[in-house]
Amino acid sequence: MTSAGADPTGILAAFAAGLAFDAIPAPVLRRAEDLMLDWFGSTLAGKGARPVESLVRFHTQMGPSDGPSEVLVHRTLSSPLAAAMANAAASHFAEQDDVHNGSVFHPATVVFPPALAVAQALGRSGAALLTAVVAGYDVGIRVGEFLGRSHYRTFHTTGTAGSIAAAAAVGRLLGLDAAQMRHAFGSAGTQAAGLWEFLRDAADSKQLHTAHAAGTGLTAAYLAADGFTGARHILDGPQGMAAGMSSDSDPSRLTDGLGTRWALAETSFKFHASCRHTHPAADALQRVMHAHRLAAGDIARVTARVHQSAIDVLGPVIDPQTVHQAKFSMGTVLGLIAVHGHAGLAEFDAHYRAAPVVAFRDKVRMQLDPEVDAAYPARWIGQVEVETVDGRRLSARVDEPKGDPGNTLSRPELEDKAVRLAAYGGGATEAEMRGVIAAIWSLADAPLVPRLLAP
Amino acid sequence: MTSAGADPTGILAAFAAGLAFDAIPAPVLRRAEDLMLDWFGSTLAGKGARPVESLVRFHTQMGPSDGPSEVLVHRTLSSPLAAAMANAAASHFAEQDDVHNGSVFHPATVVFPPALAVAQALGRSGAALLTAVVAGYDVGIRVGEFLGRSHYRTFHTTGTAGSIAAAAAVGRLLGLDAAQMRHAFGSAGTQAAGLWEFLRDAADSKQLHTAHAAGTGLTAAYLAADGFTGARHILDGPQGMAAGMSSDSDPSRLTDGLGTRWALAETSFKFHASCRHTHPAADALQRVMHAHRLAAGDIARVTARVHQSAIDVLGPVIDPQTVHQAKFSMGTVLGLIAVHGHAGLAEFDAHYRAAPVVAFRDKVRMQLDPEVDAAYPARWIGQVEVETVDGRRLSARVDEPKGDPGNTLSRPELEDKAVRLAAYGGGATEAEMRGVIAAIWSLADAPLVPRLLAP
Repeated sequence: MTSAGADPTGILAAFAAGLAFDAIPAPVLRRAEDLMLDWFGSTLAGKGARPVESLVRFHTQMGPSDGPSEVLVHRTLSSPLAAAMANAAASHFAEQDDVHNGSVFHPATVVFPPALAVAQALGRSGAALLTAVVAGYDVGIRVGEFLGRSHYRTFHTTGTAGSIAAAAAVGRLLGLDAAQMRHAFGSAGTQAAGLWEFLRDAADSKQLHTAHAAGTGLTAAYLAADGFTGARHILDGPQGMAAGMSSDSDPSRLTDGLGTRWALAETSFKFHASCRHTHPAADALQRVMHAHRLAAGDIARVTARVHQSAIDVLGPVIDPQTVHQAKFSMGTVLGLIAVHGHAGLAEFDAHYRAAPVVAFRDKVRMQLDPEVDAAYPARWIGQVEVETVDGRRLSARVDEPKGDPGNTLSRPELEDKAVRLAAYGGGATEAEMRGVIAAIWSLADAPLVPRLLAP
Repeated sequence: MTSAGADPTGILAAFAAGLAFDAIPAPVLRRAEDLMLDWFGSTLAGKGARPVESLVRFHTQMGPSDGPSEVLVHRTLSSPLAAAMANAAASHFAEQDDVHNGSVFHPATVVFPPALAVAQALGRSGAALLTAVVAGYDVGIRVGEFLGRSHYRTFHTTGTAGSIAAAAAVGRLLGLDAAQMRHAFGSAGTQAAGLWEFLRDAADSKQLHTAHAAGTGLTAAYLAADGFTGARHILDGPQGMAAGMSSDSDPSRLTDGLGTRWALAETSFKFHASCRHTHPAADALQRVMHAHRLAAGDIARVTARVHQSAIDVLGPVIDPQTVHQAKFSMGTVLGLIAVHGHAGLAEFDAHYRAAPVVAFRDKVRMQLDPEVDAAYPARWIGQVEVETVDGRRLSARVDEPKGDPGNTLSRPELEDKAVRLAAYGGGATEAEMRGVIAAIWSLADAPLVPRLLAP
């Protein structure tokens, strides 16, 4: 069935079902808490955004008007399914949630919403929630790696691998055994979906994809607990996910270092408020401008030397018409960096179509770089060449962008980012956020996952 | 963007948005009523089936415990989303619902559940419901034809094209304009999913696929009514459905005969209680046995000459372990025909592993036939060669299986089938079904779509 010889899907499902809190190293647990806070801020940053509010409205109207699980942006309660979908819809909008480089997968937005909603519904402990989250990350990331670059060319891996990640996290909270977890994977994978086509039109599908992944994964796990069966080889079978949606899948990635390599700890925080594919070049541009004390007006031309996926995802965005689309415009991101020093949520809102930014944008081009491309997706190298108005040719390189595990954010930096994200959409005051931060930093000892905002 | 030159997605969306009741020929409306009754019976036949009850339980628990829309197998009420998903889960289980040959697509199970649930929720007329159903069928069938045979090799077209079909039907009931309908298609298509992998394990995913299609399509349409946008070229764009999930898509099929060719009227009713790929051979075997007055014991060997998709779908099922899997076993179906004269729900339940059926099953093989394969999927030709115990070589051919448009079921035959299906799972008594039948036959004149079973 697979080139890995053994049974990677079975091994992965057994890992997720059997993962014990005590087996997870303390630094991984601390990183899981970091990621939870980062996710929480990202969720509140989605409050008020039109597509987010559409989805939250729909799922809360179609679900019950009361229940055990928080809908964070509205501070209301509903069923775990409706809450998970609403929170997942909210948490990927600001493009400030985490990313795992090797899998090009955003784990938080598909793992935390179903895990939190179900932990609240079942009255689980903080330790159980953290364990489930580690299971979700480590499964989802490996599925993303397995599906490979060919998959990502057409499919939004966060949507597709996200269904399996959500199923793993919820399945762990439900206490599924290995066989049931495998059924949950089967039911999640056969619902996995998400196409990049929407980017060309700046359409709202990204929020739909994360909600869909959270909802289908949660559904799959609950069904498995009730005896509902799924395909045994949903990932690598002859009519499974890879057969249908990938041409370079690698089954060995599904079990790579299970239980010793903690993929969750490899996850990066976002520093710029844009598509991750723009970050390496943004960091490199900051470096060259800082080193040579350049202002935007000093620069005649920028060449970002990038990997192919950056061209695939960002290339179609020539003249962004919305803030969201601008986050996928390499020129706009570099323009905000050059003109305003930052590409944060506030800079995007205020300046993404301002004349100086647009003028800079049109000086930027992307070029495929063989070395950068070969390193990707394991490493996201940033390399820019700058031609100055006075004829100098300068360049800079960043081997690990800000927020990556080797260049990570400290807890004070994470707290600051979360407080700003919460304030951005009016989702929570700083005082409220201090309470949430304290709750998350002490989650491992909490006998019960608390409500975080709802009364 | 497409080889069809124009904008087939836009044309199809405009058709669905603009379809008027008065533009639909009376025979097409009558056929839509026929299909509704056939679907209704199939839904009740799912009552009590383990995977159906799992899904119904899940969606009714996650949804509100009251609402405007009927959950038919439980006679309860919930939100349109929960009811649509529950009813879609139920209606494809017995494998007695309709099929469109050319698209290898089962329209009823993904169109009627969301259409009925939303018509009840919005208080629409019977004419509005029938109009929406015609829109759903004609869109879904064309999307299935567009995605082609390569898609069907790995993907369950009823699950994938089904999302768009459901969006079209619900979008018509919501009164979406052409632009909104196109957004609904975009949101539905980017959630489209369903892989055949589950068949190898006789897993429960088929019920999940129809529920998923109904739910995602309904969601897409409601979101579009609320201003949520989707990809403009979700079907034929460079990162759309065909790009990701087909290698032989044909955009011209999306608009083929729109408004003059009514694809709904091309839909076939099922006569045998098995996968449609078994039906042509089953009819041909009945013919040859009848013509030569053969009993099962007279037959030494049967060769079913089939199209490639029959081998793809049925080939992996060698030794079926469940009734459901047996419906995908050519040998079992022909065995039931040979031994019991019928392959109905009751025959499957009682005899699918009985020794005489298993003995006959092992005499059956499938062989790819170039002429049968070339005619497929437009025509499903049945051709069998029989070798008798006494050494005769006989054969028979059926050009249009029972239930196809040219060999269709009469209203009395449809009523009889529906009453039997309703009785099968204890879903409704004959008296109750007579009331439902009367309601459906007079639907075109009903100012309000009535409740059909719930108190």
